[in-house]
Amino acid sequence: MSPRLEDLPLRDDLRGMSPYGAPQARVPVALNVNENTHPVPKEVADDILDAVALALRDVNRYPDREFTQLREAFAEYLGHGLTREQLWAANGSNEVLQQVLQAFAGPGRTVFGFAPTYSMYPLLARGIGSRWVAGERGVDFTLDADSAAAQVAEAHPDVVLLCSPNNPTGTPMPIDVIERVYESTDGIVVVDEAYWEFAPRDERSALTLLPGRERLVVSRTMSKAFAFAGARVGYLAADPTVADALRLVRLPYHLSALTQAAAVAALAHAPTMLATVDDIVAQRDRISATLEALGYKPFESWTNFVLFGGVEDPAATWQGLYERGVLVRDVGLPRTLRVSAGTEEETSAFLDALASIDSAS
Amino acid sequence: MSPRLEDLPLRDDLRGMSPYGAPQARVPVALNVNENTHPVPKEVADDILDAVALALRDVNRYPDREFTQLREAFAEYLGHGLTREQLWAANGSNEVLQQVLQAFAGPGRTVFGFAPTYSMYPLLARGIGSRWVAGERGVDFTLDADSAAAQVAEAHPDVVLLCSPNNPTGTPMPIDVIERVYESTDGIVVVDEAYWEFAPRDERSALTLLPGRERLVVSRTMSKAFAFAGARVGYLAADPTVADALRLVRLPYHLSALTQAAAVAALAHAPTMLATVDDIVAQRDRISATLEALGYKPFESWTNFVLFGGVEDPAATWQGLYERGVLVRDVGLPRTLRVSAGTEEETSAFLDALASIDSAS
Repeated sequence: MSPRLEDLPLRDDLRGMSPYGAPQARVPVALNVNENTHPVPKEVADDILDAVALALRDVNRYPDREFTQLREAFAEYLGHGLTREQLWAANGSNEVLQQVLQAFAGPGRTVFGFAPTYSMYPLLARGIGSRWVAGERGVDFTLDADSAAAQVAEAHPDVVLLCSPNNPTGTPMPIDVIERVYESTDGIVVVDEAYWEFAPRDERSALTLLPGRERLVVSRTMSKAFAFAGARVGYLAADPTVADALRLVRLPYHLSALTQAAAVAALAHAPTMLATVDDIVAQRDRISATLEALGYKPFESWTNFVLFGGVEDPAATWQGLYERGVLVRDVGLPRTLRVSAGTEEETSAFLDALASIDSAS
Repeated sequence: MSPRLEDLPLRDDLRGMSPYGAPQARVPVALNVNENTHPVPKEVADDILDAVALALRDVNRYPDREFTQLREAFAEYLGHGLTREQLWAANGSNEVLQQVLQAFAGPGRTVFGFAPTYSMYPLLARGIGSRWVAGERGVDFTLDADSAAAQVAEAHPDVVLLCSPNNPTGTPMPIDVIERVYESTDGIVVVDEAYWEFAPRDERSALTLLPGRERLVVSRTMSKAFAFAGARVGYLAADPTVADALRLVRLPYHLSALTQAAAVAALAHAPTMLATVDDIVAQRDRISATLEALGYKPFESWTNFVLFGGVEDPAATWQGLYERGVLVRDVGLPRTLRVSAGTEEETSAFLDALASIDSAS
C-alpha cells in the first residue's frame, strides 16, 4: 500500500498545496491555455526537422552550455540594438522567471506582483522559499503609475513581476507604470511580455526601457505568438550582468541540443511563424465585440485571449461549453471566464456554443 | 558601461560564487565530462527524427504535462516490476535531483552526501537555500555500512544523496551501505545511479530495494550509457507518492514535446543504444591496466571513467594532454586526474599522449 503524501518528509511549507492543474481534457476546440491554435507551417517544420537531424549527430555530447547561436538568434529577432550577451533562455518562460527569482529573490526574500496576475508567480516564489506579496489593481484590473509606484515602495520587494499585458485579464500595462515602478524600488523589475506580440504595433515594448536600467529584465516566450508551446522556449533581455547572475543558479546544460536547434530554426522563419498574429488579433476583437452583443462584459485585451465578466454562473457556463466541445478557463475571478482566440472556425464554435447557452446576467 | 555582478541585488548567499564550469574547449579527443563518445546509431536517429516530426505537428500546443508515454517507456526499460506511476523524468538528472531537493529539502533544511562526490550536489543544495553537509569516505574513497550509517544518523539530514557508483571517483557503493543509510534516517535517500549501466551485470541495483521503502529514490540518466547527453533526459523510480510531491515543485510542462518524443523513440531501441556499453567497459579496464603499467594509481571504477592518482603535477599533465589534443578533467582531488573511456581510438590517443608525457610520480 502506498503511503499518503503527508507521510513523506515533505517541506513544511508545501504541505496542503495543490499542483498547477489546467485540465488536460481532449476536446474538439481547446481554448483554455492561450496557445496559438495554428500549427507550425510545413516549410518551417521541415527546416526544424533538418536542424534537429543535424543536432542528433552529436546528441551523445552535452549541448552548448552557453546556447550562443540561440542567444544570437533572439537578439536579432528582438532588435532594439540588443546583443547576444543581453539574452538568456530556458525551458519556457516559467523557467526563465524561476532562475531570476533564484538569483535575486530566494529564501526569506519578497516577490511582488499586482493581482490578479499570472497564477504561476506565487507558485514560483513559494517554490524557492520567497514570500509572495500581492498588490492591488484599480477598476477593470488597470494600473496607474502613482498607485503602482506607491505600492511597490511600501512593499520593499526584492523582485517585482509585471505582466505586460496582464494574464489572466489581458489588461495593457502603460509604459509609465513600468518606469515609475522601476524608480520606486532597488530590486529587480521583470516585465513579462509573454503576450507582447498581440499588443498594438505602435505601442512601446519595455525593451525600449533597457538602456541605463541594469535592474530591468524583459521576458518573452515562444509559446504564444510563435506557436511553439510544445518546444518549451522562454527568454529574456537584460543587462549582460543579469545573465552572469543566472549562470550561478541555472543547471548546467539546461537547454537541450534539440531545443536549441529547433528554436534557432524557427526563429529563422520569424515572419512566417508570426503570420498568424494578425488573424488571432482579429478573432480576439471579434470575440470581444460578440461577447458585448451577447450581454457579457469583455475586458480590454492586448493578448490572444479575452477575459469576460457578466457570467452569472461560471461553473455552469464552463460545463455547458465543455459539453458542446469547447474548453475555456475558469481562472477563479468572480463572474468571469477566459477564452483564447483560436482560428476563425474555433472562434465561431465558441461564440455559437456560448450563444446557445445564453447565460449572461 | 555594464555594472558589476556585485552591483546587482543578488541573493546574499550567492555572492562570490562561481558557476559550474567544465571547459567547453574544442579538441580532437574530449574525454572530460564522461559522455558516451559513440554517436547514436543511424537507424535510431532516423526513428527519433520520425517521432520528432510527428511531435512538431502539435508543437503549437503545450506538451503532455504528465509525459505518460515516456514514463511507461522508462518503466518498461527498467523492469523490476515498476509501473509508470513510479517513474518521473526531467531535463537531465540534475533537474530530477533539484526537484527532489525542492520538495524534500529547501530553505533551512540539510542535504548530505559523502565527499568527494558529484560536484553539482552542493550547488543544487545551496541553490535552493539548503545546507550541504559532507560526510567522509574511507581509504580509496570507499564507504562501509557502519561508518556511513553512523555519519548519516549524526547529521540528521532531510535528504541523503548517494552516488552509486560514485562520481568523480568511480567507486562502487555496496548495496548494504544503501540499506543501512536508509535505516539510519527519516529523510529521503536518493541513490544516483547515473553510471549504473557500466557496473558489473551481476550486481544489484538500488531499484531492487524499492519495495517497502517509500523514502527511497533511485535516479538515472540517458546522458551516459544511452549516449543522449545532448537531449537532457534524467529520470527516477520511487514510490508513486514521491511523484505526487514532485508535482508540487516542478514547473508545469517542464518536459518539451520534442524531448518526450525523442526519448520514447530512443528507449524503443534500448538494446541498440546500449550496445556500446561493453566496448566502453573494455576501454575503461584497458585504461586502468595501462595506467597501472605506466606507474599511476587508478581507482576501482564501475563507471565509464577512471580517476587515477600518482600524478605529480595534475595541472601540468592536464596541459600536456591538452596540447596533444586530449581533454581530461582535473576534479580538484590532489595528485589525480579523471578521464572518460572513449572509443578504442580515443582511448589509445589518451594513453599514447599520457605515455609521451611520463609524469607519474
